[in-house]
Amino acid sequence: MIIVKVGGGRKINLKGVVEDLSSLSEPFIIVHGANAVRDDLAAKLGHPTKTVMSVSGYSSVLSDENAIDMIMVAYAGLQNKRLVELCQQHGINAVGLSGIDGKAVQGVRNKGIRVRQNEKTIMMRDYSGKPRSVNKRLITLLLDNGYVPVLCIPIIDENNTAINSENDDIVATLQEELHAETVIQLIEAPGFLNDANNENSLVARISKLELESREAQVEGRMKRKIHALTKLAATGVHRILISDGRVEHPIQDALNGKGTTIQ
Amino acid sequence: MIIVKVGGGRKINLKGVVEDLSSLSEPFIIVHGANAVRDDLAAKLGHPTKTVMSVSGYSSVLSDENAIDMIMVAYAGLQNKRLVELCQQHGINAVGLSGIDGKAVQGVRNKGIRVRQNEKTIMMRDYSGKPRSVNKRLITLLLDNGYVPVLCIPIIDENNTAINSENDDIVATLQEELHAETVIQLIEAPGFLNDANNENSLVARISKLELESREAQVEGRMKRKIHALTKLAATGVHRILISDGRVEHPIQDALNGKGTTIQ
Repeated sequence: MIIVKVGGGRKINLKGVVEDLSSLSEPFIIVHGANAVRDDLAAKLGHPTKTVMSVSGYSSVLSDENAIDMIMVAYAGLQNKRLVELCQQHGINAVGLSGIDGKAVQGVRNKGIRVRQNEKTIMMRDYSGKPRSVNKRLITLLLDNGYVPVLCIPIIDENNTAINSENDDIVATLQEELHAETVIQLIEAPGFLNDANNENSLVARISKLELESREAQVEGRMKRKIHALTKLAATGVHRILISDGRVEHPIQDALNGKGTTIQ
Repeated sequence: MIIVKVGGGRKINLKGVVEDLSSLSEPFIIVHGANAVRDDLAAKLGHPTKTVMSVSGYSSVLSDENAIDMIMVAYAGLQNKRLVELCQQHGINAVGLSGIDGKAVQGVRNKGIRVRQNEKTIMMRDYSGKPRSVNKRLITLLLDNGYVPVLCIPIIDENNTAINSENDDIVATLQEELHAETVIQLIEAPGFLNDANNENSLVARISKLELESREAQVEGRMKRKIHALTKLAATGVHRILISDGRVEHPIQDALNGKGTTIQ
């Protein structure tokens, strides 16, 4: 089995992804983003994506109730359904699921972010959290009957509330329970770069050990990315392919080792 | 089995509907609308719902590509996912599906509408059509495994394109294949009214025969509604309950015969 994570950037060639997937012989699952579509729709609907600064100096997205509406509109709505339609047009019998459908992805809501407000430190609690388990029974039921699950946020928390979560964490949780051979991550870059600003600095291979040392060297969002990869690698996946989603054949190129291979 | 059609009006008490459904012992399926939410979001996103006038004098909604995006955003996105969340919060293991997911509802695209433009009669073809069949295998698979399908538009056409369709027709098509005992239709009125402007003119009972004679007496949208009911009645359904979705207990009231019963 292959888990395919498709980034939510504007330049990802979704048609190429689906064309490639339609000729795969292995079963697969898709987990997709939609951040570009979400930011567009959210701005037009008067709910632009908000960030807050924690007392420890980290900036995070604030997932208030409107933000969850925007996730439903953009991820589970427009992006998921246009992707499912594209799959159907290429002979892939896709079924779009958010993490709340059949409790496909279950998580725990975050306790809150410590922020300074009016010279006081307060806990600001939003609708975000970490995935803890997936409904393997439902996903297997669909796969065994010839359907391809196409997953996205929101996920469902311990009180059955819709929450935001990171796709990297969702993929790691899926992998822990589904034991895919291969995880493909399609991004808007040729793969893992030594220098984020230089597309020619592709790292062709990284060992699982090397990941940990790299995690210590970087900061911010990149640190979180590498941490998620380390966690994913620890699930015993055979290989992780980080590859360019903008090219003509994103999946073929990934499988042919044109991006970064983590083994 | 019960098929529950929930109107997409602003005043429908969705929480009451889900509370009532959570104590039902029979299996059920939900088909929901979202026209109020769609009109809101579509206007804000700069794609207000458009209508065209056919040469024969009928006004219809024009489902262009933007209109399908708006259906995905509002029906399959916001309304479906908030309804699924509400179901999960009441112990109903709902799985939201548009008609394109797993080809749950398959249809045929309309040939077009004849309209006058610049003193010529042209055919204007949009993305709308009629449902012809449902994926009974998928719906049964979900029901048999304890999941409640929560269905909405778009549906999928003969070329695997997402199209708009009438929920009345979708419910009739579902009923043809699933043979539910009861179909409940929750609307923003006490039931079928003799005079659409007078909420005290409720018709408590209509026979299937009477439906046909009433169809001959009315015009426009009401004619289409009654025609759909006639078609639904012809599937051999035991009873159709048209009832008030705005009350505290919409499903209980419907089952207790407080609306209109067609038998």
